[in-house]
Amino acid sequence: MTLKTGIVGGTGYTGVELLRLLAGHPEAELSIITSRSEAGREVADLFPNLRGYLDIRFTEPDPAALGGCDVVFFATPNGTAMAMAPQLIDAGVRIIDLAADFRLKRTAEWEQWYGIPHACPGLLEEAVYGLTEVNRDAIREARLVANPGCYPTAVQLGFLPLIEQQVIDIDHLVADAKSGVSGAGRKAATGTLLCEASENFKAYAVAGHRHLPEIRQGLELAAGQPVGLTFVPHLTPMIRGIHATLYAQLRDPDRDLQALYEARYGNEPFIDVLPAGAHPETRSVSGANQCRIAVHQPQKGGVVVILSVIDNLVKGAAGQAVQNMNVMFGLDETSGLSGIAVLP
Amino acid sequence: MTLKTGIVGGTGYTGVELLRLLAGHPEAELSIITSRSEAGREVADLFPNLRGYLDIRFTEPDPAALGGCDVVFFATPNGTAMAMAPQLIDAGVRIIDLAADFRLKRTAEWEQWYGIPHACPGLLEEAVYGLTEVNRDAIREARLVANPGCYPTAVQLGFLPLIEQQVIDIDHLVADAKSGVSGAGRKAATGTLLCEASENFKAYAVAGHRHLPEIRQGLELAAGQPVGLTFVPHLTPMIRGIHATLYAQLRDPDRDLQALYEARYGNEPFIDVLPAGAHPETRSVSGANQCRIAVHQPQKGGVVVILSVIDNLVKGAAGQAVQNMNVMFGLDETSGLSGIAVLP
Amino acid sequence: MTLKTGIVGGTGYTGVELLRLLAGHPEAELSIITSRSEAGREVADLFPNLRGYLDIRFTEPDPAALGGCDVVFFATPNGTAMAMAPQLIDAGVRIIDLAADFRLKRTAEWEQWYGIPHACPGLLEEAVYGLTEVNRDAIREARLVANPGCYPTAVQLGFLPLIEQQVIDIDHLVADAKSGVSGAGRKAATGTLLCEASENFKAYAVAGHRHLPEIRQGLELAAGQPVGLTFVPHLTPMIRGIHATLYAQLRDPDRDLQALYEARYGNEPFIDVLPAGAHPETRSVSGANQCRIAVHQPQKGGVVVILSVIDNLVKGAAGQAVQNMNVMFGLDETSGLSGIAVLP
Amino acid sequence: MTLKTGIVGGTGYTGVELLRLLAGHPEAELSIITSRSEAGREVADLFPNLRGYLDIRFTEPDPAALGGCDVVFFATPNGTAMAMAPQLIDAGVRIIDLAADFRLKRTAEWEQWYGIPHACPGLLEEAVYGLTEVNRDAIREARLVANPGCYPTAVQLGFLPLIEQQVIDIDHLVADAKSGVSGAGRKAATGTLLCEASENFKAYAVAGHRHLPEIRQGLELAAGQPVGLTFVPHLTPMIRGIHATLYAQLRDPDRDLQALYEARYGNEPFIDVLPAGAHPETRSVSGANQCRIAVHQPQKGGVVVILSVIDNLVKGAAGQAVQNMNVMFGLDETSGLSGIAVLP
Repeated sequence: MTLKTGIVGGTGYTGVELLRLLAGHPEAELSIITSRSEAGREVADLFPNLRGYLDIRFTEPDPAALGGCDVVFFATPNGTAMAMAPQLIDAGVRIIDLAADFRLKRTAEWEQWYGIPHACPGLLEEAVYGLTEVNRDAIREARLVANPGCYPTAVQLGFLPLIEQQVIDIDHLVADAKSGVSGAGRKAATGTLLCEASENFKAYAVAGHRHLPEIRQGLELAAGQPVGLTFVPHLTPMIRGIHATLYAQLRDPDRDLQALYEARYGNEPFIDVLPAGAHPETRSVSGANQCRIAVHQPQKGGVVVILSVIDNLVKGAAGQAVQNMNVMFGLDETSGLSGIAVLP
Repeated sequence: MTLKTGIVGGTGYTGVELLRLLAGHPEAELSIITSRSEAGREVADLFPNLRGYLDIRFTEPDPAALGGCDVVFFATPNGTAMAMAPQLIDAGVRIIDLAADFRLKRTAEWEQWYGIPHACPGLLEEAVYGLTEVNRDAIREARLVANPGCYPTAVQLGFLPLIEQQVIDIDHLVADAKSGVSGAGRKAATGTLLCEASENFKAYAVAGHRHLPEIRQGLELAAGQPVGLTFVPHLTPMIRGIHATLYAQLRDPDRDLQALYEARYGNEPFIDVLPAGAHPETRSVSGANQCRIAVHQPQKGGVVVILSVIDNLVKGAAGQAVQNMNVMFGLDETSGLSGIAVLP
Repeated sequence: MTLKTGIVGGTGYTGVELLRLLAGHPEAELSIITSRSEAGREVADLFPNLRGYLDIRFTEPDPAALGGCDVVFFATPNGTAMAMAPQLIDAGVRIIDLAADFRLKRTAEWEQWYGIPHACPGLLEEAVYGLTEVNRDAIREARLVANPGCYPTAVQLGFLPLIEQQVIDIDHLVADAKSGVSGAGRKAATGTLLCEASENFKAYAVAGHRHLPEIRQGLELAAGQPVGLTFVPHLTPMIRGIHATLYAQLRDPDRDLQALYEARYGNEPFIDVLPAGAHPETRSVSGANQCRIAVHQPQKGGVVVILSVIDNLVKGAAGQAVQNMNVMFGLDETSGLSGIAVLP
Repeated sequence: MTLKTGIVGGTGYTGVELLRLLAGHPEAELSIITSRSEAGREVADLFPNLRGYLDIRFTEPDPAALGGCDVVFFATPNGTAMAMAPQLIDAGVRIIDLAADFRLKRTAEWEQWYGIPHACPGLLEEAVYGLTEVNRDAIREARLVANPGCYPTAVQLGFLPLIEQQVIDIDHLVADAKSGVSGAGRKAATGTLLCEASENFKAYAVAGHRHLPEIRQGLELAAGQPVGLTFVPHLTPMIRGIHATLYAQLRDPDRDLQALYEARYGNEPFIDVLPAGAHPETRSVSGANQCRIAVHQPQKGGVVVILSVIDNLVKGAAGQAVQNMNVMFGLDETSGLSGIAVLP
């Protein structure tokens, strides 16, 4: 079987990463990639790494053409997918949205954080949140998958075993997260110029980041009750990678936390629980669809520290999207995702 | 008045920064710089930025020659200053140790964390901890100043106003700190090669870092009682800078925290409390003897988040050492320290 | 004497560097800084390194107010200075243009490379090219100084001794130059995003860069005849610095080239001829108004290789502008320019 | 067919890249990897990107065990391969040396540049220089392949079409080459620390680099006569990539150079001649076994400028080694080498 895939958007960093992964996927072919601004241009002209591997041009978005795909990925700014999704779903196309249009369950909350009315609250309700390790069964049947944000992937995968097993005080969670600059996208902006963002480290959006409600929603679903979460994102001077450092107070300091994580993730193909005492490096997952996690309990005290790293563009975006596509169409979940991180 | 200064060690990064600052100091001259490994070599040959500004050679350490200085800085590995300090103090030389030999007050604790016997516990007791904004008066009279570590400077300056005013729960403090690679020094090591440390982010020493007892000691002195602190250092791919993100639970969420910080630091020449809502950038203090701090209370909730940035080699090492020298000898505290951060 | 200085433009990287240098200049004060886009905003709000050092706001450009200055710097895009210069010069203000409006002597050539008509060809003729080490005497009397481009400074200072002494074949010169990204300025652009320009190296404008005619003009003036020059600029993944590698064929391989350079530049305060065999590093001049040069003759053969490094924002822009100001107003040429490069 | 492969050495950067490529090669399996210093250690413990992909430990080098391999790669310091090669070749093992032991044809020249006697001059003569695009037929039959250096790969592939077609003056060639820091290897050294090599650019070894005779040898073979070459390597602050900028004087400025390159390399799977006027970026080949080349003739004058980029660890080392292995064993030349460069 060869899946016919389409990409709406695709001139940004999640787009080029999706292109790289699909170009190497043995059971998928890219039929269409749309971009209003780049219509007519060779994809490999915009992204020189693809020269020789992908011979396709950007086209104007055309619902009829997209309707011929088995699956369409949205790698667009927020607000685009929700405008086009209903028509495509009616045409029988399955959708994976890499933007935020379908990530929150509560319409009011979505509208509060994204500042615009939601175009199709019904689909918001139907959409399956695409954190594969949590919702695998639902994703299999989903017409519409809301691919998780990058921070939410790293933070939820880090916290979930502790919450599911009720071993921590969920009222005082701290997620201190650091992201490479590619998380800010490919659009021209002063703040992400090399001369502004390199040799520099800063926090941002401490007052409230859109990934906060998304993380909280996922943790609360696991907890069955409200959680108290402080989430502080930071910009770190590198291209790829997220490192989440997670803090919680233990209800029982004698619990074997290492075993708990190994039990939860032992069968997951893309989650690697490191040996006790290890410190995962973001480069160890750079370009790869993996999350590596280490569990610490400093001085055997009452605080657990979880270190969780992903590549924000892979497990945090395009890789997880392909993983979800594999699940949706009954392919081997790892198909097209066996690339090893490039190091150094 | 021109102070005669000497440096023991000085082939590392705190050394070259001290050289840069002293070369531009209007009231100090560098008389001696010692290095066993580089004796006989021009300083400007090792550090090409100093060519044309500093015409001096490294010499073998010679206590007699050092005894002619007004002040001697130790920019040595741990264990060196405590071996030479007694003799120099007897000779009437005042000492500023940029290493860790005199930072902890309790000998047993020092020996536990540094793994060797302490050579002069009496001096450990006498030494004044050189966090200028806390111990200015004692520094003025000190024969021996223990210059603080880089993380401890950023973390203590960030937490102290909250602790001094008793507005937080001191049992559950979290200090998530990120450092540029220069904090690891100039010695050849695989882990800090460009190809290992750039395009990468990781935590380290989560089980216990030597700066933990130093920070805890300072916070406990301010609190008058034990504190519970989780401290996680991270390596971030840049040369200079520390960003400490500090978390605590408020005892009274309605307290005006911004005013509290402005009151505490309003007269401090090297501490800048940013406007409410700001995010300090490490580059804004790069090369400058400053600490910039911002105070956040996300969603007006029960958690306070403090952002504190310094240049680890300046306010976190050589700059603070010069600041202490200025205080010790009755100079203007800002003398030689007016350089503006280079940006971009 | 305190000079009253003004800056037109000043929201870019040459602007912030000029601000840093003027803030620390003992004989100059900044009276006005203009920006249409940032009028009303605190300068230190845009450039956080200046917080605490400079208390001034951007204003709308106002010729009357600028007319009260002793000297006005233009740190504007090309085309602005030539529109405002005549009026200011009539008002008795001396001008230093850091853009390219007055760098070429031939109007037709200027218009060919810059693509617009020149507004005041008479001033183009009058303007003194501000390569201080070449035109010091003329700069002293100049009403209008055309501050050289960054590449032209590094390349000309490297080639000039060879050309002045007629020791090379001037028909086959090669200048292979590498620049940090700050040379591209602070404007939002995709190509200079961290994610595009870091971990990457490329040539650009091989077909013809605007600095080519500027360099050629300077070399031809020294040679007294046309020269054949190939100039290839490259973008290197760092913030500051230019490294020019210059190649020429020797007419006499036995000439003592090291002595030639030392003789030419021995009295220059800002040019440092390194010992034979050395390799200058861009970081050795980062933030400093210096050009460091090394002379090589590989395998004692017929080719000379000159290595010339500057900080593109200092000796290649703002620093050289201040140096020229010092010369124009009879100050010590090094006044305000004694800052040492920050290393590491 | 599955090839049994072994690696001697393999704790450096060419080693880890070879491991990454072999782990993903459909027709090769890694049987042995040796390291005296790391014997007994999990490979994935040293190189965390390989965790989950490669389950093998370093062992002490054992000629008997290596003798059971079809092919053995040497990823060792210079001097090791020549000591072990004779015995392995006698055992019927085919060898690919990624170090320099067999790259030069003249023993005296080898000994002059490498400073030690050569252990097996006979094999030096027999060894096939592994620039696949030049020696493909000989490689097919070779018992011993000398894998080219990184600079020599980029420079020769860039110059060869011009020399083979006799369109340039071969007495005055200039190769200005820039390398990422991984070219210096993974050994602990001060000069390649992040704090020394980042935010910095410098030339090195201008007096003479070991790759000079290797490049010259290749160009002279193509020319059938001596060539005059100036080669200047530079260190650029990034991990991977080589950019060679090549200059030559044209004998006929009207020749269609673009067509010449397209004709020479049109059938080569790993060489991409870019459209006229393009500027190849090193990141476009990062992690990929490719050389991208652009041809320029500035202002249609008498100088040709060639831009040639490779990943120094792939086409400049491990990738080319696998390419050679594929050729030696009659596999598809692109087998295991289809990975796309990761961008950004």
